[in-house]
Amino acid sequence: MAARKIASKFDLRPEERAPLSLLVSRQLRQAIVSGKVGTGTELPSEKELTQELGVGRSTVREAVRILQAQGLVSGGDTVSTKRPRVATEAALQSAAAVAIDNAMRLAQVPLGDLVELRVVLEGAAVEMAASRRDGLLSEARAAVDAMSEPGIDIERFRAADLRFHGALAGSAGNAAFPLVMGVLRSAIGSHLGEALDREPDAPKAMAKLAKEHGAILKAVLEGKGKRARELVTAHVREFYRRGTR
Amino acid sequence: MAARKIASKFDLRPEERAPLSLLVSRQLRQAIVSGKVGTGTELPSEKELTQELGVGRSTVREAVRILQAQGLVSGGDTVSTKRPRVATEAALQSAAAVAIDNAMRLAQVPLGDLVELRVVLEGAAVEMAASRRDGLLSEARAAVDAMSEPGIDIERFRAADLRFHGALAGSAGNAAFPLVMGVLRSAIGSHLGEALDREPDAPKAMAKLAKEHGAILKAVLEGKGKRARELVTAHVREFYRRGTR
Repeated sequence: MAARKIASKFDLRPEERAPLSLLVSRQLRQAIVSGKVGTGTELPSEKELTQELGVGRSTVREAVRILQAQGLVSGGDTVSTKRPRVATEAALQSAAAVAIDNAMRLAQVPLGDLVELRVVLEGAAVEMAASRRDGLLSEARAAVDAMSEPGIDIERFRAADLRFHGALAGSAGNAAFPLVMGVLRSAIGSHLGEALDREPDAPKAMAKLAKEHGAILKAVLEGKGKRARELVTAHVREFYRRGTR
Repeated sequence: MAARKIASKFDLRPEERAPLSLLVSRQLRQAIVSGKVGTGTELPSEKELTQELGVGRSTVREAVRILQAQGLVSGGDTVSTKRPRVATEAALQSAAAVAIDNAMRLAQVPLGDLVELRVVLEGAAVEMAASRRDGLLSEARAAVDAMSEPGIDIERFRAADLRFHGALAGSAGNAAFPLVMGVLRSAIGSHLGEALDREPDAPKAMAKLAKEHGAILKAVLEGKGKRARELVTAHVREFYRRGTR
């Protein structure tokens, strides 16, 4: 779609006495979240937006920075505002994670409280997944298999771990769960650093975690929701206890 | 604290090939979330930051916009970047709510899924509150009393409703709960609009809601966690069912 056509969708009207850059970013936000301008689409260039909207270049630049900070426009930290693209869902999630993380830090929420929140959410998710027994459980299976491979390195293990928990959350049949849990996980992650790196015997720790994951999945597949919740609760608590030693 | 002193805390170093405004915003963020610069504090002015940091004024302006969008600097939508202040926790929460709301909209998460997520969180919170029976329960009591006043208008009822659910969440003994539930509530709110305005008989609806709140609080005070969870689940689901009719 031509840049001119996209810009004409934004419908800029000075509606309030807010700074112009905020009005521009708000209209762009509306066009993006309403789906009028799709994820991954290239926005008009800084120069084109300047001309289309009849505002100064610094206004456009500020507006795009606001959208980047909200995760709506990609290229967050390393790309200039010259060729902005509408963000993917993953980028949006990570912006939400930053915002939650900021709020948690400022409120000085202890790590243990975040972990308990994760236990509540993930416990509910596996119980829901056990009552449905479909969705992404084959992906969870594949992730457990990957984790159990002999000689797997920490990085690949971590990726499989992410896939496993994501697939379980996605199997709850509720689209809000994987999203909020992803946000929470990365907010916790940035508090915690990476626990596995500090394990004195990483292969042993990974083998134990893979086994725990296998047991959680088995309970879900057998439709044993309460059991799955107990296992995931113990697994998550134990993991963070080890990580913060 | 003098502006010059605050600016000297930020420790600006060009560490990566990111745009300068992002480096500036990142350093300011670090100073804020680490508590070096307290909430509500006035930051150095745009002009002072420009001089202190040796960067252009548009760079400072972009950096402050980024921090506003992340909720770290207040004055979000109506204030210029000239006299930025470090945000309060409430402003941070609302930035997190915007980010989550963006992500939910883009992922097209159905309202019902958000409501079920709220049910899971609030159900867990009341169960935890019932096992502790302290914290903010007297505030919850006061909120129920306010709601039950004859002739209360919708606006005051809504404020009391917010206080009630906030106090319950705050009584769970977990600092992450009220924060995430506040974010979720306002993300749902912006999906839903305001249900009470559309009630054909608002006083009757408010009387019913006040009674439900009273019953939830009673169960919590009696230490009946499971009962409190059941009541809050029915209450939240029913409220949104009415609101979306």
